[in-house]
Amino acid sequence: MVCADCHPSEGPIKHVNGHTNGIAETHVPIDNKAVTRQRGSVAQQPFHANNVGNLSNFKIIESTLREGEQFANAFFDTETKINIAKALDEMGVDCIELTSPAASEQSRSDCEAICKLGLKTKVITHIRCHMDDARIACETGVDGVDVVMGTSKFLREYSHGKDITYITKAAIEVIEFVKSKGIEIRFSTEDSFRSDLVDLLSIYQAVDRVGVNRVGIADTVGVANPRQVYDLVKVLRGVISPECDIEVHLHNDTGCAIANAYAALEAGATHIDTTVLGIGERNGIVPLGGFLARMYTVDRDFVMSKYKIANIREVENLVADSVQIQVPFNNYVTGYCAFTHKAGIHAKAILANPATYEILKPEDFGMSRYVNIGSRLVGWNAIKSRSEQLELDLTDEQIKICTQKVKSLADVREQTVEDVDRILRDYWHALPGNSNTRTITGAPKHAVDATSS
Amino acid sequence: MVCADCHPSEGPIKHVNGHTNGIAETHVPIDNKAVTRQRGSVAQQPFHANNVGNLSNFKIIESTLREGEQFANAFFDTETKINIAKALDEMGVDCIELTSPAASEQSRSDCEAICKLGLKTKVITHIRCHMDDARIACETGVDGVDVVMGTSKFLREYSHGKDITYITKAAIEVIEFVKSKGIEIRFSTEDSFRSDLVDLLSIYQAVDRVGVNRVGIADTVGVANPRQVYDLVKVLRGVISPECDIEVHLHNDTGCAIANAYAALEAGATHIDTTVLGIGERNGIVPLGGFLARMYTVDRDFVMSKYKIANIREVENLVADSVQIQVPFNNYVTGYCAFTHKAGIHAKAILANPATYEILKPEDFGMSRYVNIGSRLVGWNAIKSRSEQLELDLTDEQIKICTQKVKSLADVREQTVEDVDRILRDYWHALPGNSNTRTITGAPKHAVDATSS
Repeated sequence: MVCADCHPSEGPIKHVNGHTNGIAETHVPIDNKAVTRQRGSVAQQPFHANNVGNLSNFKIIESTLREGEQFANAFFDTETKINIAKALDEMGVDCIELTSPAASEQSRSDCEAICKLGLKTKVITHIRCHMDDARIACETGVDGVDVVMGTSKFLREYSHGKDITYITKAAIEVIEFVKSKGIEIRFSTEDSFRSDLVDLLSIYQAVDRVGVNRVGIADTVGVANPRQVYDLVKVLRGVISPECDIEVHLHNDTGCAIANAYAALEAGATHIDTTVLGIGERNGIVPLGGFLARMYTVDRDFVMSKYKIANIREVENLVADSVQIQVPFNNYVTGYCAFTHKAGIHAKAILANPATYEILKPEDFGMSRYVNIGSRLVGWNAIKSRSEQLELDLTDEQIKICTQKVKSLADVREQTVEDVDRILRDYWHALPGNSNTRTITGAPKHAVDATSS
Repeated sequence: MVCADCHPSEGPIKHVNGHTNGIAETHVPIDNKAVTRQRGSVAQQPFHANNVGNLSNFKIIESTLREGEQFANAFFDTETKINIAKALDEMGVDCIELTSPAASEQSRSDCEAICKLGLKTKVITHIRCHMDDARIACETGVDGVDVVMGTSKFLREYSHGKDITYITKAAIEVIEFVKSKGIEIRFSTEDSFRSDLVDLLSIYQAVDRVGVNRVGIADTVGVANPRQVYDLVKVLRGVISPECDIEVHLHNDTGCAIANAYAALEAGATHIDTTVLGIGERNGIVPLGGFLARMYTVDRDFVMSKYKIANIREVENLVADSVQIQVPFNNYVTGYCAFTHKAGIHAKAILANPATYEILKPEDFGMSRYVNIGSRLVGWNAIKSRSEQLELDLTDEQIKICTQKVKSLADVREQTVEDVDRILRDYWHALPGNSNTRTITGAPKHAVDATSS
């Protein structure tokens, strides 16, 4: 079965003027505008179940201003916090979570300042399960309060030293107080995946009974795998009332944070915690950009109607500058190589149809695609495409000779696009009958049909 | 139920001399040696099924010298390739995969040179499903050949244009040829998760019948989720003979590569493809370090007995230098913040028992742990621990006053460990009865019992 969405319907792909980019000089940019069909259509995938759980219906709690402030480098002054809050609001995230106003005097006044901005997004703050913290939080003007308490044997023994009965009692007191102020309240356990399952379920059931709006599961140490997350959310879904939402907070120490978020949604979770670039304690949590890329492959329409995904690079740059880090080379979507294609068979197919090796449309994210044609891995189809851009009438056999020349030189050092152009032009000029008076410009003169290459 | 492995048995945790590190000046290093028990014991985790599938019995095919060469920045000369091959061999990876000798003349001679090194690891090369490539590969001296062919509708239409009957026939011819040379052979489909399931299974069954050693599943575009990977591997496991191994090659465009590898092992896959730092086409594949971290949380003994995980930083630095990239700030295990703790409740508990917020023992990976005590998020237990390192006899109430001072100053700018020390010393000196003649040195004089903090 072939999905109609996955076939080109706009005619030939057009190449814009070839030029080098600032990062690697051997790339040929391709016009993205001609590529508007959806990639990675789920209909073709083995075992895919679309619309399972909440894959097409979730909310983002953006925690850059809380979890992100726990990142080693983070020090956000008031102006920076406001800029980040506004950028996240503009992007369309459902909630932003702020550091507890009980953490410091500045934290409290910043929280109040952000509440006064009149953002579309809900403003939530994150506190310990203490009445002192709850009272301070409720006076800041927040829309919601996220309460957390450690339930693992580790945290009960080495952190707060409280038993499950005490935790439940403390949680109920805080929940009832916050609710009495007309403010939304979430209760989360901490280190849920190293907690006793019966303890967890009994606490969640107790807080659900007093009307908590949302319960949270936290993989505080980044140890969970997708199967565990799915199973715990699924069981929890059956224990609490249908109107109680489920939030997941997932650390990335062992590389499963995004997949765990996905599994949580499959099982019926409603809210995913993210931070920009994933910054947080240690190596952080679910990154906003990577999570959006993941969900885009499932339901592009839902993601694009709800979130301005083309803003992701700007938001990431804002946060990266604020905490003085570089966006990782391999960052989801915005890493500089996320849309760079190099191997011969990849380059050939991507020129014919980008959906062959891409499931994300770079233009949807405000990005561009590059095909590297100057490496030893290049194939003759990519070289042919370039010669056509240069208006050189070469046969396939002649292109193959030029390709061998490029590969041979690229064995010594990577060739730039100018190097490749010179090889092609020199070869063309040396052919009998080709006039030396013909004007050869540096840039290709017109678009070509890459589907023929 | 409390796992005995997760409780301290070596007495109090000892702090070594406090000093600042080169990255962030507000960190207090902690002695790792006293923390030898296993973290993240699976026995306590809800829904964890240890020893499922091959979680404790897998092989790594390290493809930095093949997939990694397709990374935008990669240009490996012969010496670099040999250095990387030796470093991976030293680390204990089961196989290394090299670029096809058919790609270029240098690729061929480099392949031969690496085969002659006499490494313990198997040397494999990766070729297209062509007899021409197979003949060249078999003359290089490799232990194994990895053959790949695109089976998705996308690749069949826009890349090679062949149908399933043709693909099967071509595969069988290549497999029988390579086997006749006494060389191990794998056949993999490409873009498996956008291929027709019946096509896939019929090809895999056909190549299994002619005795292929290993079949491969490839998520070439990074679209798969863990459930799909599990299900496809599980079904495949039942279709092919028990002696046929299953390899998975998983791209990371949407952040699920490590989790997908994990799911594949749960379902019975035997071999995982990795590259150092995950480098490869676009934003790459399963990273070696992150994958080892993931598997360490399941079976530390298996991982540590088989792989020299303390070498990971050295191997990553070698590759990062070769391709001129920075190790990402949030890289698994070796990112500079992977073992940095900041929030008050985290710092308090980690000082008492690192297993509270760590599932990886940094010393097993040749790394160190840091606790940040100079932020507005600091708690009084972390400050108390520092004052004890400085041999200042302060009461809890006095420590809390100092903590408020630190938090208040940290609202203006993050405090260094020297700043915190000065606040503590100034406060101590101002107390009645404290002699000004007492020698206060910059470094703590002896270890303290952090379990009391």
